[in-house]
Amino acid sequence: MKTEGMIYGIGVGIGDPEDITLKAVKCIKESDILILPSNDPEKCRAYRIAKKSVPEIEDIETLALEFEMVRDENVRAKNHRIIYETAKKLVSEKKTVSFLTIGDPALYSTYSYIADLAQKDGIKTEAVSGVSSITACANRLGVTLCDAGTQLHVIPDTEDIEGMLELPGTKVLMKCGRSISVIKEKLKGKRVSVYAVENCGMPEEKCYRSVDEIPDSGSYMLTVIVKELG
Amino acid sequence: MKTEGMIYGIGVGIGDPEDITLKAVKCIKESDILILPSNDPEKCRAYRIAKKSVPEIEDIETLALEFEMVRDENVRAKNHRIIYETAKKLVSEKKTVSFLTIGDPALYSTYSYIADLAQKDGIKTEAVSGVSSITACANRLGVTLCDAGTQLHVIPDTEDIEGMLELPGTKVLMKCGRSISVIKEKLKGKRVSVYAVENCGMPEEKCYRSVDEIPDSGSYMLTVIVKELG
Repeated sequence: MKTEGMIYGIGVGIGDPEDITLKAVKCIKESDILILPSNDPEKCRAYRIAKKSVPEIEDIETLALEFEMVRDENVRAKNHRIIYETAKKLVSEKKTVSFLTIGDPALYSTYSYIADLAQKDGIKTEAVSGVSSITACANRLGVTLCDAGTQLHVIPDTEDIEGMLELPGTKVLMKCGRSISVIKEKLKGKRVSVYAVENCGMPEEKCYRSVDEIPDSGSYMLTVIVKELG
Repeated sequence: MKTEGMIYGIGVGIGDPEDITLKAVKCIKESDILILPSNDPEKCRAYRIAKKSVPEIEDIETLALEFEMVRDENVRAKNHRIIYETAKKLVSEKKTVSFLTIGDPALYSTYSYIADLAQKDGIKTEAVSGVSSITACANRLGVTLCDAGTQLHVIPDTEDIEGMLELPGTKVLMKCGRSISVIKEKLKGKRVSVYAVENCGMPEEKCYRSVDEIPDSGSYMLTVIVKELG
């Protein structure tokens, strides 16, 4: 325990346990308590990834709090407030409270909402960068995302990608498993190269190198890369 | 030396030596030779970053080859071919040849051109993911890039950002130090939050939290984050 409490958001990468950073390993070990979305840590993907590279994580106290994504913004804000108040109480007891994030905490993480609330209260926070699926999937495929001068557009799960596909440069569609059949339909006939990775870095990982290879139903953790033809 | 030669592109993050991944550390140590852009390794930013976390790097042989970015595509392609032919020869001698990349090898790296050529010749390549400036700068500032549903647009150095600023979501302008005075002019009066980090993670790092704070001239290694007002 340190002299002052604080909150960490720790990116653990997206699957490959070796993709975790030295700082993430250090900050996990410094944590007094990990706030997780389930009573069973093994149900938390970020915890499972981290455990492979930091086995000492099993000695750290965990606290289960519901923080699944919900569509209703008010419900979501209320959930975040509950999680934050719990974290705040722990910080007041001088604990180092950590949230593990798949990928990087700056992108689509629950931690970011907690950090916003904490910063308003003057509580110390630190976001520890992680390898995100944007580049991890490209590297897994051996594909370059952007050459010099090329733009990159990252689009979270949506079926409404028509306009996006008109943007210049490379497009990455994140966590788009739920919309994949619609996305496939819209990609067909376009003059683009399409790649995808499902559960990148996990034992069940699958890589695809064309629209036709991508199955119509699969994991939510699907990343699609759309590149302009060179 | 392993039984078969290969080429690694190793992302080392963008400055903070603790932002390097376990895999990057391992692959650097496995390397027989590092191809660097200068005879003096200390002039290579990626080498300087890596040396802080992997001091053993000093025992690894280095080879200096010019690979500065040039505007002329033909000259660039010719340079890449020369670098590649050198790497290919080393691989044929069963060496593990590595390129260090600031940030991540999938984004704006010289390695990516070499990997394309190598893959066409059936040479084994592996890109090792790194923390990129996209998220590292946001985390340094304690700022979230994207909440659920928010798009992210990454724009390499250009003065022509007018159209980009109209895109929904968050914009990250990479390595935009050269164009910053024009960019600042275009950002003034827009209903956006603007942040910037110069030399993120390096001893000379500077953080800015408004357009007015950003100096008109500074390092090439400047990342600007433009967020829509919440």
